[in-house]
Amino acid sequence: MDRLIEAIERMRNPSVIGLDPTPQLVPSQLIASYADEVAAMVEEPEEIAALQLATAYFAFNRAIIDAVSDIVPAVKPQIAMYEALGPAGVDAYAMTCEYAQECGLYVIGDIKRGDIGSTASAYAHHLTGVPALPGHDSGSDTGHGGAEGPDDPWHEDAITVNPYLGADGVMPFVEAARHSGKDIFVLVHTSNPSSAQLQELELKDGGMVHERVARLVESWGSSTRGSYGYSAVGGVYGATFAAKAPSVRASLPHTMLLVPGYGAQGGTAADVADLFDTDGRGAIVSSSRGIIGAWRHADRYDDSSSADESLSLVADSARLAAVDMRDALRSAVYR
Amino acid sequence: MDRLIEAIERMRNPSVIGLDPTPQLVPSQLIASYADEVAAMVEEPEEIAALQLATAYFAFNRAIIDAVSDIVPAVKPQIAMYEALGPAGVDAYAMTCEYAQECGLYVIGDIKRGDIGSTASAYAHHLTGVPALPGHDSGSDTGHGGAEGPDDPWHEDAITVNPYLGADGVMPFVEAARHSGKDIFVLVHTSNPSSAQLQELELKDGGMVHERVARLVESWGSSTRGSYGYSAVGGVYGATFAAKAPSVRASLPHTMLLVPGYGAQGGTAADVADLFDTDGRGAIVSSSRGIIGAWRHADRYDDSSSADESLSLVADSARLAAVDMRDALRSAVYR
Repeated sequence: MDRLIEAIERMRNPSVIGLDPTPQLVPSQLIASYADEVAAMVEEPEEIAALQLATAYFAFNRAIIDAVSDIVPAVKPQIAMYEALGPAGVDAYAMTCEYAQECGLYVIGDIKRGDIGSTASAYAHHLTGVPALPGHDSGSDTGHGGAEGPDDPWHEDAITVNPYLGADGVMPFVEAARHSGKDIFVLVHTSNPSSAQLQELELKDGGMVHERVARLVESWGSSTRGSYGYSAVGGVYGATFAAKAPSVRASLPHTMLLVPGYGAQGGTAADVADLFDTDGRGAIVSSSRGIIGAWRHADRYDDSSSADESLSLVADSARLAAVDMRDALRSAVYR
Repeated sequence: MDRLIEAIERMRNPSVIGLDPTPQLVPSQLIASYADEVAAMVEEPEEIAALQLATAYFAFNRAIIDAVSDIVPAVKPQIAMYEALGPAGVDAYAMTCEYAQECGLYVIGDIKRGDIGSTASAYAHHLTGVPALPGHDSGSDTGHGGAEGPDDPWHEDAITVNPYLGADGVMPFVEAARHSGKDIFVLVHTSNPSSAQLQELELKDGGMVHERVARLVESWGSSTRGSYGYSAVGGVYGATFAAKAPSVRASLPHTMLLVPGYGAQGGTAADVADLFDTDGRGAIVSSSRGIIGAWRHADRYDDSSSADESLSLVADSARLAAVDMRDALRSAVYR
């Protein structure tokens, strides 16, 4: 986790921008501008929508990355938004991760994978790169294929992981993180309304399910601690549980927290401040719609503007919103 | 769930073949046979391994599908195996699903997705197809894009879903299943050793976490029941919990069970028999390595055989193993 922590300190900005485009969050004139180019490329007319959206998503993301890469340490593309378009969208996801890494950003792939051991090992190639061909000695099984390696098709520095399968579904990711110098963030307590249905079930032995998961996360990471005391196994903890923040921070002394739910979902800088340790470390706060959709509330917005004008508005608005978020977090966290 | 149940009854075979290739499960001469063709196609030499494996995986899957499509009702590709190769692997996954559907098979995409509501809605496009372009009236939001629709890039008839996020992470999939005439299978109790860590935690109000999830699964599906009483919301239940099978069947009267853990993971036909109802319905049993890796135990196998010979051995061995599994399940289930 050292790389992420140092990137945060360089920027004095513990925030990460969620790159979660949807057909509604991307200016329609930008999407429309690719119509002819895409129509000339596809074999079947039915394939136009997916490729047109995928092309627009990448252009949209690139504009935002260019606008913020000098002030934010990390981005977090949510792969669901890209899978909605099929394999063409998955290509745009990987291209986005690659471009963000090239711009010096730490990339958290929000993929929430999890499965039984042998399958989790396959998913863990997100971190370690493509498996070696039979009879070849290279590839991820020997620990090659790090963030900059040429056989790393996903270009992620960290991924999110679902803990429902238990340790044997998580440890392959921990091992992969260790080998590749990358990180994972395991879901602990999510920011959505019905997270309570499972995560807040009260256990016979005391405490709730998410508290038990928190304890597991601490133990899963115990052999991977870095220079700042934080392990390669972080946790996802919703910004919407402000009241519990001090006890969460205390119960997870070696767990970096990825905190969604800021902004559009209702969390404020004050809500998340207690998730940081006394050195101002230990958490990174995520916002997506509040940053990438900021252009929709800009005075300058006009339906008749060109694709290029809309893209420049997206970029300018995202930067303003990212600065606002950074400054709010700075005041709340670096006390 | 009617389509799956009817396919099972036509074949008198409640089994599904897991298409989960790995570099070890695919004959090395088959992988090697694509070396020159792939090397001529890629831009960077580092991309060869991923594309060579992806090409071999698809050829491997196609041979197995051709060998079994007249005797099994369904296949279940595990997307993790393909994601291990990056976007090139994801293409092979979608091509495999498409080919299987063209051969008349019901395709269960084993993707175990799950996230907060708005993100789950994006993942749900796996079932409903690509979202409409802004200003266009077609696409999934109007309920178009079913299994055969041209804007359906994933070609899945059902997908698996992770319940850790609770109802708002699952209901978008339920709605998508309803609109598209497809199905989902929610993880209830998985077959791996450490599933106990979370799923068997004892609750203060009695019962275990997986039993509470089972109850939720029944309720989530309640408005989607088909002609046989089973809803569009199935459950994943490991074959390794034989002792509990009768009570599981009784507690989930409207939930079709997808049962992994048969064969390589230790489950037998007798173990799973009690997961079926008295009409011999209500469950479909999955095997992967036992079928697609059967060629490795064949007498005919010889390292010096050609790629074509190895592929024909894969196909013949898979068919024999699939017939064995079918016959074992028939004896145990159709009593």
